Amino acid sequence: MTIWCRFDDDGDARFGRIDGDTVTAIEGAPWGTYSETGSRHPLAAVKLLIPCEPRTFYCVGVNYPDHIVKMAAMRGTEPKFPKKPDVGYRAQSALIAHGETIVKPPDAGEKFQYEGELVAVFGKRCRNVPKERALDYVFGWTIGNDVSERGWQASDGTLWRAKNADTFKPMGPWIVTGLDPNDMTTIIRLNGAETDRFATNKMVFDTATYIAEVSKYCTIEPGDVMWMGTDGLPQNMTPGDTVEIEITGIGTLRNPVVAG
Amino acid sequence: MTIWCRFDDDGDARFGRIDGDTVTAIEGAPWGTYSETGSRHPLAAVKLLIPCEPRTFYCVGVNYPDHIVKMAAMRGTEPKFPKKPDVGYRAQSALIAHGETIVKPPDAGEKFQYEGELVAVFGKRCRNVPKERALDYVFGWTIGNDVSERGWQASDGTLWRAKNADTFKPMGPWIVTGLDPNDMTTIIRLNGAETDRFATNKMVFDTATYIAEVSKYCTIEPGDVMWMGTDGLPQNMTPGDTVEIEITGIGTLRNPVVAG
Repeated sequence: MTIWCRFDDDGDARFGRIDGDTVTAIEGAPWGTYSETGSRHPLAAVKLLIPCEPRTFYCVGVNYPDHIVKMAAMRGTEPKFPKKPDVGYRAQSALIAHGETIVKPPDAGEKFQYEGELVAVFGKRCRNVPKERALDYVFGWTIGNDVSERGWQASDGTLWRAKNADTFKPMGPWIVTGLDPNDMTTIIRLNGAETDRFATNKMVFDTATYIAEVSKYCTIEPGDVMWMGTDGLPQNMTPGDTVEIEITGIGTLRNPVVAG
Repeated sequence: MTIWCRFDDDGDARFGRIDGDTVTAIEGAPWGTYSETGSRHPLAAVKLLIPCEPRTFYCVGVNYPDHIVKMAAMRGTEPKFPKKPDVGYRAQSALIAHGETIVKPPDAGEKFQYEGELVAVFGKRCRNVPKERALDYVFGWTIGNDVSERGWQASDGTLWRAKNADTFKPMGPWIVTGLDPNDMTTIIRLNGAETDRFATNKMVFDTATYIAEVSKYCTIEPGDVMWMGTDGLPQNMTPGDTVEIEITGIGTLRNPVVAG
């Protein structure tokens, strides 16, 4: 297990290995060839950046049975389970790092909600891989908050602003390698109070299944990410709130909410 | 009017200015600060690359009245006109350059079709710009072929493979600055025979309207692209075909189709 962050190293965006309280900067990407730069910083003193910059940003929409049932009940509709793994895309422009501020747009409605998600970070180019070997292409795991404005999600023709407005995609705090995605719990807290807790592997289609299916048609590159969906019934966030997504083994992604 | 390409300069991806038959390489991006490298090549001898690498890849879905009417008639449904400008996202991994090969996946159906589209390439960071000034943020214009597998488009929960499988997004051949998007004609040819011709500005919502709306919520960065939709009724492509999208003032994007 190794923990890798991306951070502001005196003005340069660099990856760093976290050992205890210390960040050791590297030149290069942790999934490629790299060398230590000699630069070391206390973890508490560095400004964390998004842990990678995906070229293609994959995101699974509905992937937990309980979430599907509860969201349908809330809308007064029948639950619709996905018949096959259909992935979606999100906007790179919406990504923010751990600790950065989620800005609620002035015209966003009350149903402005978090979604806590496991994120696979790829480390190798991946095309046409069988499910059995799919996780070999995952470098490590991080956490995403798929911030969603439910009014726009219902009214618009696409998810463009409902899920992709600026700051709607917190990701971090770092990437952890060597973890078993079948042995994680996701815990969500709003202002310190737990609002949801679920076994991270209770997915309709697991990460390996998604990677195998997507890679039949699309080449996944190192540094690309796949967000794996959320469970439960997300709650509303209002300016002044702080939302935390913890996934055991990875850490906690924490972001305050402010009014735009 | 200046023509800018991106090309393989002895192994390095570089932008180049095209003057007549000559490409002059630059260091940097044409929308930023740059300098000439001294490297010059005959245009005919260079391998063109995709003309920019967007961080966020915006694509307008249905934006021409005639296309909406004809596609609905083909499906036997009522035409549905968009009520507001809702943009979508496409996968960077699907982009290929002028001259590169569109690969029809082995399990793709008969309705494997081109869509010829005007593409705005941004040159300045853009947030919250009024419609009247929106085109000031466009550096120049290029051409996109929004290759689509209609069976998957109808059957899947998202457009992920229908419009984003590898090679499904030809873009190029280059970027032309100083053009008036209201004075262009799009001409589509399959194996040299014209299959469609339309005034490029007959959009439901024009480029400036889209930029103004998107930039209310999303920060558009230099090098990002917005594909503006197609008109007409696209035809099927089969391996062995060559598809050309010409937009007057820009040039011709030409790609052969092969079987995967």
